[in-house]
Amino acid sequence: MDAIEKQVLERIKPSDEEKTRLENTASYLMKRAEELAIENEIPGAELQVVGSAARDTWISGTHDLDIFISFDPSLPREKLEEYGLLIGRQIAREAESWEEGYAEHPYTKLKFSGFDVDIVPCYRVESAEKIISAVDRTPFHNLFIREHIAGLENDVLLLKQFMKACGVYGSELRTGGFSGYLTELLVIHYGSFEKVLHAAASWEPGKTIEMVKPKHSFEEPLVVIDPTDPNRNVAAALTLERFTQFISLSRDYLKKPSETFFLKTKPEPMSDKEILDSCEKRKTGFVAICFQTPDTVEDILYPQLFKMQKSVEMLLEQHDFRVIRTNVWAGEKSILTIELENESLSNIRKHFGPPVWVKEHSEKFREKHINNPNTFAFYIEDGKYVAELPRKYSHAKDLLESELHNCALGKHVNRSVQEGYEVLAGEEILRIKETGYRAHLRDFL
Amino acid sequence: MDAIEKQVLERIKPSDEEKTRLENTASYLMKRAEELAIENEIPGAELQVVGSAARDTWISGTHDLDIFISFDPSLPREKLEEYGLLIGRQIAREAESWEEGYAEHPYTKLKFSGFDVDIVPCYRVESAEKIISAVDRTPFHNLFIREHIAGLENDVLLLKQFMKACGVYGSELRTGGFSGYLTELLVIHYGSFEKVLHAAASWEPGKTIEMVKPKHSFEEPLVVIDPTDPNRNVAAALTLERFTQFISLSRDYLKKPSETFFLKTKPEPMSDKEILDSCEKRKTGFVAICFQTPDTVEDILYPQLFKMQKSVEMLLEQHDFRVIRTNVWAGEKSILTIELENESLSNIRKHFGPPVWVKEHSEKFREKHINNPNTFAFYIEDGKYVAELPRKYSHAKDLLESELHNCALGKHVNRSVQEGYEVLAGEEILRIKETGYRAHLRDFL
Repeated sequence: MDAIEKQVLERIKPSDEEKTRLENTASYLMKRAEELAIENEIPGAELQVVGSAARDTWISGTHDLDIFISFDPSLPREKLEEYGLLIGRQIAREAESWEEGYAEHPYTKLKFSGFDVDIVPCYRVESAEKIISAVDRTPFHNLFIREHIAGLENDVLLLKQFMKACGVYGSELRTGGFSGYLTELLVIHYGSFEKVLHAAASWEPGKTIEMVKPKHSFEEPLVVIDPTDPNRNVAAALTLERFTQFISLSRDYLKKPSETFFLKTKPEPMSDKEILDSCEKRKTGFVAICFQTPDTVEDILYPQLFKMQKSVEMLLEQHDFRVIRTNVWAGEKSILTIELENESLSNIRKHFGPPVWVKEHSEKFREKHINNPNTFAFYIEDGKYVAELPRKYSHAKDLLESELHNCALGKHVNRSVQEGYEVLAGEEILRIKETGYRAHLRDFL
Repeated sequence: MDAIEKQVLERIKPSDEEKTRLENTASYLMKRAEELAIENEIPGAELQVVGSAARDTWISGTHDLDIFISFDPSLPREKLEEYGLLIGRQIAREAESWEEGYAEHPYTKLKFSGFDVDIVPCYRVESAEKIISAVDRTPFHNLFIREHIAGLENDVLLLKQFMKACGVYGSELRTGGFSGYLTELLVIHYGSFEKVLHAAASWEPGKTIEMVKPKHSFEEPLVVIDPTDPNRNVAAALTLERFTQFISLSRDYLKKPSETFFLKTKPEPMSDKEILDSCEKRKTGFVAICFQTPDTVEDILYPQLFKMQKSVEMLLEQHDFRVIRTNVWAGEKSILTIELENESLSNIRKHFGPPVWVKEHSEKFREKHINNPNTFAFYIEDGKYVAELPRKYSHAKDLLESELHNCALGKHVNRSVQEGYEVLAGEEILRIKETGYRAHLRDFL
């Protein structure tokens, strides 16, 4: 195992040259920001680098640099935003490209000497429990990790790379995985990369790591109390899916360690023939819903896509279709792919009424259905009236074409769907040519 | 309603001529039996006519005559059987045809002057609670009804005809309906045909009629304590299906009385075209299992067919087929017809393992499936391992051809199935030409 880890580290640990480049870039940007604060007579601005760059826990090839400008809490919010953007914009003049991002307040994102730089204004509060906006917490995390990480940096690198390669890294809502801060805390808590895996191999939902006594209880699969804020679960964004995947992968690695656990493989797009062969082998029904991806950030898009996914599953099941799997993919188009036991059903459905002896209700039921020309049959089964009625939709495509608008869709997805969508069934999915989607299908088929 | 009932009675009430013929036949047979008892020096034999013929509750055109020969309870059972058959066989010499039947003990069935005559030996016990064999009860029933039926005969005729026409009459196991004695008791208890219907319209399962205090409690849908034996529920053979059908029919008749309720209509056999049209309209899957009807009495055959029906439904559902309806029919061949939502399914099935955190079990599950070349896919869903495995049977026909022998079949049906059976799917059912089956299909399609 040691040999494997050594090999992996050689690949993922930044070289001295890479480190120097980062340090120089960071120093330069800090200096420029400080100068700009003075030039513009901005009071009480303090600069600091935060995140993995500041903690020596960044992986070679990733070029993220987070520069925080902190202000006194007495500064009005508008002023904080104004000053933050002012410094950001002026540095941006020297950048390859830039844009403004909006989280709780605006910040500046720029490409600078090949680095992805975020320039973020925040408040310099007394403690993480007294934050004014979510970003105010970051400097406290930074401080805590810097105080405890010495000697464990390599273990953090290994854990991050392991998680990245296996698809459980990243706390954005699309992934619902482990954040960088969470991996660092896990390594600090357990003592090494391997010890984290050993522990994870026996985790159960509700697993709680109290680096500090929590102020209340949490419901998430994994609970890691933030040592800088006992009100917060650092693993709050981790889904049950990613939690259990990590457990499973930890066991696998410990049983049979290999470098492949640290290598992210990109699936090849499936060809038409591969798709058809796979469908033929599975003999299931495929339906895909396609629409223009709404123009919004991923943290807003993906929760809406997931909501749509659940809602479409429910719609199908309400109409007696049996869903095997569903999956969302988003590129220029967003595509919800659905695999069904059968994509078409009979024309009839059994509609059970009340037991015959529940007089009033059963008589109403009988009255309603027995003389309806659409009723296929009316009889008693297990003491209950049964009306055989025509199905409104005996093909999943028809159902989705007619009823998708009745599904709970998020605001942006809904707007996009309103503008038009297409339902493809069976071989029609071959009309989707996007290579990203075709690669994504490989996980599915 | 009175007019309708009058009209029906005109049709179903035996004419004076018919009655005279019955009385003459009964008298002759009684006299002959008495003579034979004396001739053969059979001690203590007493003759009586029992059943509807003795109670004036028989419907015109039915020609059943039950003659009971009762003996002293001290007579050994072999002697009783010997004497019963001896008298029966000698009378049989004058009959058009005859056979020996076997219930608890042997009796003689004969065709005599157009009547279906049963000559049955029984014990002359003190009370119905002290019976030695089940037939010993009949004379007590006869006595009770004769004492209470005066003036209600027409109402019994109407109720019997109503139940016959609607398919709920007959306590044999094939039907699971109302016995003649039960209809008589209901009329005596409620006071008239119409009053029985009024009461039935509001019956619920567990409805209990205590013409005498019961000695224990009963679980059947309808409980009518036998006035001659408080240990017995006269309605024990009545199924929930027939019970609720009768409730429903009673309400219908009271709402809109009509002579059609008293007319049994024989369904026409369906033509090939009619069957195909109906299948096309329903778009369901049809499968039929055919085998030689075992050579046994209906009270043994039908419970075995019903057992097979339930067992085949379970088999199909275990393999993920969705059963809409099933039905049994028996002529020369026995045929179990099954209607399915889809007669074929996908090639894959999702096999859910334990939650990932149940370490030992989930690791075993993973080990077992992940390297199996037949596994289509292996993943985590809702925290549980899922293996996508090939279905053993993706067509219902294949399943039934291969696994029918694993179903719980009764002794006779099992023997017959062992000798060979055929599974027909879809249009293949057109190969079944029996008109009885084709008529039976009309209820189904």
